[in-house]
Amino acid sequence: MNKDQLNGLLRPKSVAVVGASNTPGKIGYSVIANLLEGKYTGQIYPINPKDDVIQGLKAYPDVAAVPGPIDAAVITVPAKLVIEVAEECGKKGVKGLIVITSGFSEVGRKDLEEELVRTAAKYGTRVLGPNIVGSLSNTDHFNGSFAPGLPLPGKASLISQSGALLIALDAATYTRKVGFDKLISIGNMSDVDFADLIEWLDEDQDTYCISLYIEGLKDGRRFIETSRKARKPIIALKSGVSAHGAAAAASHTGSLAGATKVYGSAFKQAGVLQATDLNDLFNRTLVLSLQPPMEGDNLLVLTNGGGVGVLATDSAEKFGVPLKFAPAELQAEMKKHMPEFGSAKNPVDLTGMAGNDWYFESVRYALSDKWVDGLVVLYCETAITVPMDIAQSIKRAVDAADQKKKPITISFVGGERSDAATAWLVENGIPAYNAPDLAVGAMATLREFAKVHSNGAVAKFVSNEKARKASLEVIAKARADGRNSLTEIEAKQVFSAYGLPVTSTRLARSEEEAVRLANEVGYPVVMKIVSPEILHKSDAGGVKVNVKDDATVREAFATIMKNAKAYNASANIHGIAIQEMAPAGTEVILGSTTDPTFGPTVMFGLGGIFVEVLKDVTFRVTPVSDEQALEMLGEIRGAPILAGARGEAPRDRKALVKTIMSYSSMILDLEDEIAESDANPILVYEDGKGLKVVDARIILAKK
Amino acid sequence: MNKDQLNGLLRPKSVAVVGASNTPGKIGYSVIANLLEGKYTGQIYPINPKDDVIQGLKAYPDVAAVPGPIDAAVITVPAKLVIEVAEECGKKGVKGLIVITSGFSEVGRKDLEEELVRTAAKYGTRVLGPNIVGSLSNTDHFNGSFAPGLPLPGKASLISQSGALLIALDAATYTRKVGFDKLISIGNMSDVDFADLIEWLDEDQDTYCISLYIEGLKDGRRFIETSRKARKPIIALKSGVSAHGAAAAASHTGSLAGATKVYGSAFKQAGVLQATDLNDLFNRTLVLSLQPPMEGDNLLVLTNGGGVGVLATDSAEKFGVPLKFAPAELQAEMKKHMPEFGSAKNPVDLTGMAGNDWYFESVRYALSDKWVDGLVVLYCETAITVPMDIAQSIKRAVDAADQKKKPITISFVGGERSDAATAWLVENGIPAYNAPDLAVGAMATLREFAKVHSNGAVAKFVSNEKARKASLEVIAKARADGRNSLTEIEAKQVFSAYGLPVTSTRLARSEEEAVRLANEVGYPVVMKIVSPEILHKSDAGGVKVNVKDDATVREAFATIMKNAKAYNASANIHGIAIQEMAPAGTEVILGSTTDPTFGPTVMFGLGGIFVEVLKDVTFRVTPVSDEQALEMLGEIRGAPILAGARGEAPRDRKALVKTIMSYSSMILDLEDEIAESDANPILVYEDGKGLKVVDARIILAKK
Repeated sequence: MNKDQLNGLLRPKSVAVVGASNTPGKIGYSVIANLLEGKYTGQIYPINPKDDVIQGLKAYPDVAAVPGPIDAAVITVPAKLVIEVAEECGKKGVKGLIVITSGFSEVGRKDLEEELVRTAAKYGTRVLGPNIVGSLSNTDHFNGSFAPGLPLPGKASLISQSGALLIALDAATYTRKVGFDKLISIGNMSDVDFADLIEWLDEDQDTYCISLYIEGLKDGRRFIETSRKARKPIIALKSGVSAHGAAAAASHTGSLAGATKVYGSAFKQAGVLQATDLNDLFNRTLVLSLQPPMEGDNLLVLTNGGGVGVLATDSAEKFGVPLKFAPAELQAEMKKHMPEFGSAKNPVDLTGMAGNDWYFESVRYALSDKWVDGLVVLYCETAITVPMDIAQSIKRAVDAADQKKKPITISFVGGERSDAATAWLVENGIPAYNAPDLAVGAMATLREFAKVHSNGAVAKFVSNEKARKASLEVIAKARADGRNSLTEIEAKQVFSAYGLPVTSTRLARSEEEAVRLANEVGYPVVMKIVSPEILHKSDAGGVKVNVKDDATVREAFATIMKNAKAYNASANIHGIAIQEMAPAGTEVILGSTTDPTFGPTVMFGLGGIFVEVLKDVTFRVTPVSDEQALEMLGEIRGAPILAGARGEAPRDRKALVKTIMSYSSMILDLEDEIAESDANPILVYEDGKGLKVVDARIILAKK
Repeated sequence: MNKDQLNGLLRPKSVAVVGASNTPGKIGYSVIANLLEGKYTGQIYPINPKDDVIQGLKAYPDVAAVPGPIDAAVITVPAKLVIEVAEECGKKGVKGLIVITSGFSEVGRKDLEEELVRTAAKYGTRVLGPNIVGSLSNTDHFNGSFAPGLPLPGKASLISQSGALLIALDAATYTRKVGFDKLISIGNMSDVDFADLIEWLDEDQDTYCISLYIEGLKDGRRFIETSRKARKPIIALKSGVSAHGAAAAASHTGSLAGATKVYGSAFKQAGVLQATDLNDLFNRTLVLSLQPPMEGDNLLVLTNGGGVGVLATDSAEKFGVPLKFAPAELQAEMKKHMPEFGSAKNPVDLTGMAGNDWYFESVRYALSDKWVDGLVVLYCETAITVPMDIAQSIKRAVDAADQKKKPITISFVGGERSDAATAWLVENGIPAYNAPDLAVGAMATLREFAKVHSNGAVAKFVSNEKARKASLEVIAKARADGRNSLTEIEAKQVFSAYGLPVTSTRLARSEEEAVRLANEVGYPVVMKIVSPEILHKSDAGGVKVNVKDDATVREAFATIMKNAKAYNASANIHGIAIQEMAPAGTEVILGSTTDPTFGPTVMFGLGGIFVEVLKDVTFRVTPVSDEQALEMLGEIRGAPILAGARGEAPRDRKALVKTIMSYSSMILDLEDEIAESDANPILVYEDGKGLKVVDARIILAKK
């Protein structure tokens, strides 16, 4: 990461503004004005070749002329001058450039952008941008941007790929009462990218939650690795989910792998929570920045109204933290602070008679009770209570309980007085919302974070040298033939090299050879045409199953050959595959695609209608850990089939997990060679009895 | 409905407050105070036997003593006195009672509640409540409740089953800027229920959208009928979706029919939009009360920022109104008001340079363009524009376009200035939100309303006298045997009477009879044990399929009898069913359950894994129209199977629609007799070839 440079870039002790101006309306004017208005405590060096004084500050003709060291340079001069400025900054020893200037790759000038990065790299200077709003840090009173002001102070930090949105959200921090310490506009990501910033923010003592607005990642795999290692919660809003569309593709996997699904899987693997929209991003950032994770499933809801209690119960189920009955002891304690007609079950309904004391006592006890893993407190504005008093009682109870590891979220439903109480709670570190489902959703977010956080590390990957060598030989031969795909037999050789249990398949070039191989493989056998030009073997009449004896082999050999020639007279026919006939089992599919952002990506699903009609598949970016493989088995809708639905024995999920991991290793190890692949079908047998890959397909990467 | 009485109840010209008080803290005090504070223009008659003057108003000892007529009486006296008051009010000719008093069915005093309704009914008096907050109407300056004040004036009306929530939401109307004309607390619904109020509000000239908070309906079918007939949009938040749980049931249908699913289906049939949470209820109520329906699928999005534009595009897809490219002519026009690097496709990106004029021209043109069915305008706060000016430009454009039938929604993302602009737009009749997905979601709501609104009328139902008579005979026989279910043969007789195409099934009591019937039915046949005590026929070894000749019939007869006796020695065996063997087809299931709220309800799904593993089923409350039956076929996940997936011919959906309608008529016609039923499996053949009900089951209602 090179922390020192990033420290200089994001928390500079001195900053040069190249293009600083006395003319309002110019960006170089705004940046100086913003630094002054934000009360930046470091040194400000306006750089302007014409003026000696900029907005009351001594200006310098160029960075070289600046007397002291410069940590960061905010660059606002036209694009054509930026390279030269970068060169000067490099010579001066500037640690990082905040390149606000646009006119680079976003308008087709990728060349200029690359030159900028090359120039900076010569001196070890890091580049944020170009084409950004700038960078802001409340802790440092640093508004190195043309965004009107520093955000509402708080404990989260935001990285935004949209500058316009960053400006709007900056203002919105005040109205939505969600505070941020740093706002970083990331723009074209020519050098500093999401991964760099996540790594740096994870060590930043003023950041407790990392929030992202992502339009598209550049290096998806590095994003996953870095995020997975982070100890702080990360939440991302990914836009553009509908624009991408699935690329036209030759394989099942390619057609099923839209960007949305792969991003979703990647976020899971990265341990990054995914926001559904802007309000969701704000609401969940708030709770993640203020409260500890929820380390168990026992959610207790306290309420003064049945209506909001029922809505909270619904939400808890919807968000995956369904309410359980509170244990007897806890109920007995709760009963002490409610009228006879209250309920201590869960939600604990203190009734509309609940005042400050009942709220205080119940909250304090609930936070101290060992059964409770997380507490949601609801208040529905009544005529006989004062919302601010209730809020203060809750805060006092939180202080009295002094439980640093037990999260609490609040909902006040009501008018102005409730909103004021909500804002007060937030200012005092307690996330509070205007609807019960938001408070429950916030708590569910803390539960989700606890779970992803405890999930294992990044999957390890080691190249399998021997398998790789064998595979490359098979692939080289196919390429030498001018082919862009492997035959089934070749693909199975590759699969087999990586330990995938394929059905034994041998190539017969003549009827005699077919009979001999059939006897070696053992009856019954399956016979299939082998020709690079015939991909849809069944359609060509090129498949015979359950061939039971020598005579039928001969007959089938002749028929398949005849059919194949009739189907495609110019097809280059390698021969006929004689294949072990696997016993019936549950059909599953593995496949792979090369995602433009994340690289080799594995798909898993059940076969037949599950994949063809229901598109019931799931993805993981490689490498895939055993834990992730197991998650894949569980998250398809057809999961009960593998667990043994309809009175059948459970399928061999261990073997399937192992196979997914081997498959993942294979496509990653051969990522330069394999564009797409399918193992379809794989027949999975009952627990302990393994599985067989019946058909195999590999489409080569274009070279 | 009896409109005159409800007019008196909900828009009274004179109101008596029984239990009016001078003691602050008492509900009888609050109601008088609220009427005064709300500046109620009608006559107020405080009723109090002790005081002559209540809060400055002349008081009367009882309603009889009041000189003029009384439209409504707000009752706040203790429960034990309410009957007597109702009697007096009846005699006085009061049109409606607003019974705030609690202590009725909600605490087990159903008797008292029934007496109240009986008493009022003698005089034609309608009863709202008991156990309510009261009723409020801005138009009439009428706050006949103990809720602190009238809501923010607006064009929606809310009926709430939770009083506490009504009070909180009343206050929230001001902070959320969603205005209401009437707030009605419905409480125990002893007399006036949702259907009454929907019918009345649909004719109320000050209500443009009817919003509901529902905990549980009493008469579900009447709710559906009334809502279906309403011309105004209705939106409901239904709570308690998780609490209900599926009742233990003997049939597939019963176990799959949770309250959530049935309520969801009922809302669809009723044309009622369903809110997901409180904020969603507010957000969508706002748009439904201010804008016309969106009568086509062409949504145009205007924006000044790419980021919010992409988020809107994502939302449009998510909410089912995906963006299409704008036609060339429209694009050309849009291009006139943006810089070179803007985009006129859709979203139309005016870029961050967009000021008042561009917004004005683009909005005005878009609203006038015939391609555009709905317009969403986005604004992302920038440093160079003033949010309020943009808002006013949009309003001017809306006025200039003067298109009453074309809906518009707005999103401003930003800080205080944007929020103020948003509030101003709402005050001026244009729904505006703080995030792009909310503006798009609002527009999608208008699209949804247009669709449900154009959906056909309530399904018609006519009893089938002949079928009913035949069925009742079969059922009477079973009941006479002391049975609570029909045998397959009996159930098929009932199905058949209602025109369902069942496989021909005859009962053989001896081997000889079996052979004779098999020849009559035609080989091959299926043979099944018939015994009320053996429900799981296969488990008992009681089924043989594909029986092809006389000899096998004899053999099978003996074996099945032997197996059945071994399985259950005390079973009463009617004989063996000889059944036509239907050709293979696509398996579907129909079933029915008697929902506690909605009565006879039909379930439809595909058979096999679809129902057993995926629970892929859908429901409709009877009667079911052809349109609704067709919707059912389309809304299951396995729908592509019926349309002809995997290269197969489409299934006979016409036959299926007809069968669903017959099934629906059957269970409604026999609702007093049938508790649950299944037609499982039904084999559906390709288009034009019909279907066959292979197995049938009817469980009788307890008598």
